[in-house]
Amino acid sequence: MNRRRRIYEGKAKILYEGPEPGTLVQHFKDDATAFNARKKEVIDGKGVLNNRICEHIYTHLNEIGIPTHFIRRLNMREQLIREVEIIPLEIVVRNVAAGSLAKRLGLEEGTTLPRSIIEFYYKSDELEDPLVTEEHITAFGWASPQELDDIMALAVRVNDFMAGLFLGVGIRLVDFKMECGRLWENDLMRVVVADEISPDSCRLWDLRTNEKLDKDRFRRDMGGLLEAYQEVARRLGIMPEQDRPVVSGPTLVQS
Amino acid sequence: MNRRRRIYEGKAKILYEGPEPGTLVQHFKDDATAFNARKKEVIDGKGVLNNRICEHIYTHLNEIGIPTHFIRRLNMREQLIREVEIIPLEIVVRNVAAGSLAKRLGLEEGTTLPRSIIEFYYKSDELEDPLVTEEHITAFGWASPQELDDIMALAVRVNDFMAGLFLGVGIRLVDFKMECGRLWENDLMRVVVADEISPDSCRLWDLRTNEKLDKDRFRRDMGGLLEAYQEVARRLGIMPEQDRPVVSGPTLVQS
Repeated sequence: MNRRRRIYEGKAKILYEGPEPGTLVQHFKDDATAFNARKKEVIDGKGVLNNRICEHIYTHLNEIGIPTHFIRRLNMREQLIREVEIIPLEIVVRNVAAGSLAKRLGLEEGTTLPRSIIEFYYKSDELEDPLVTEEHITAFGWASPQELDDIMALAVRVNDFMAGLFLGVGIRLVDFKMECGRLWENDLMRVVVADEISPDSCRLWDLRTNEKLDKDRFRRDMGGLLEAYQEVARRLGIMPEQDRPVVSGPTLVQS
Repeated sequence: MNRRRRIYEGKAKILYEGPEPGTLVQHFKDDATAFNARKKEVIDGKGVLNNRICEHIYTHLNEIGIPTHFIRRLNMREQLIREVEIIPLEIVVRNVAAGSLAKRLGLEEGTTLPRSIIEFYYKSDELEDPLVTEEHITAFGWASPQELDDIMALAVRVNDFMAGLFLGVGIRLVDFKMECGRLWENDLMRVVVADEISPDSCRLWDLRTNEKLDKDRFRRDMGGLLEAYQEVARRLGIMPEQDRPVVSGPTLVQS
């Protein structure tokens, strides 16, 4: 597998050339990073858990008609995805004040927001992913006004689905980050959800205890990151310890 | 005059109760501040110049149908204004990359932007006026979506007028800050331009030499602030050294 052509390596994932044109293989690493990679650690098994949790979420998003780049999981660490042109924005949807929003606007962490808020951050390690507005995005051409409308509509739908999904298993979806990409099919372009959604990119608090079940455990040196991700997977009905490679369509996962 | 009731004192201005209900007197101080008032100085005569330049701009804005809170200048340091409910946003319009935008997005200062960009900063000394998006503004109710549309329409018009006004006297309008307020008349509310527009709140570069004719001279310890403001006033055809108090309508200024 390692003779495949590597297309891109990020902080937590590697993208390889896929088996067919227009596909890629997304590989989940065990690397945990925070604060623009100034803090780094390898956490054995994190990649496997994120691959499974992301598969679970994206499979359901596809099923309810929210388009994603996800095709199917290939093995413990890899999934087959459609090749898209990534839009250079981190799209953050917030339901509860936490992290940078709480700090920037002087809100107490844990305050429920008057309504869900969508934020955009420009993807640039060099600039430390600055908050940007629709004005910046359209003026510099990072996305068109129509694409921004599509992205915001997707973000609202993903938030609605995820809030429900996690509420059902006793977890509060505080916020999450997603990315979008442009997918061409028959000369038509549409915007789809890309990258990953996993406890690396969400804030997930236990509904009853407010215990953090996400990457804040790593950012804040709380320990127990793997156990928290395992708990999320367990509640979602995923048992990664019994991982089975998938060879064709996603229906085989249930076999 | 000092027995009037003081309504509010800011970094560069004082607001007093006005002679009639619904009016205030806006007094321009000589205090120069920057970096959230961590840098401070008194510059004799700055208030007089800003009062005159602001009068010049707001008079013309009113004439071309861009509503402002300005009624008329009263004396060297004071103007009569309508009382409005200030919307807690600094509205920044940028034509050329400079200041915080250049820094945040890694742009070289002086680069002409692909198009004018409107930014909003939440007015809070404690939070250091953070950049905010339309999502934050409407979610927290700082302004309604309709008010934001009105504000952006005003900002575009003010920018068009000011760009023309300064171009006519050999000055490039790099960016400026304005504030808006809610004005009630006959039970109808409309959004108007409030506060001040002056070299304190603009970046103005000489078209030929790029010499700075604005508060950046103070922020960057370049000296010559008063001379720069005098040059702006001189080019606009205002001669503050021959200041004459105005007792009734603005037409008396020309007498």
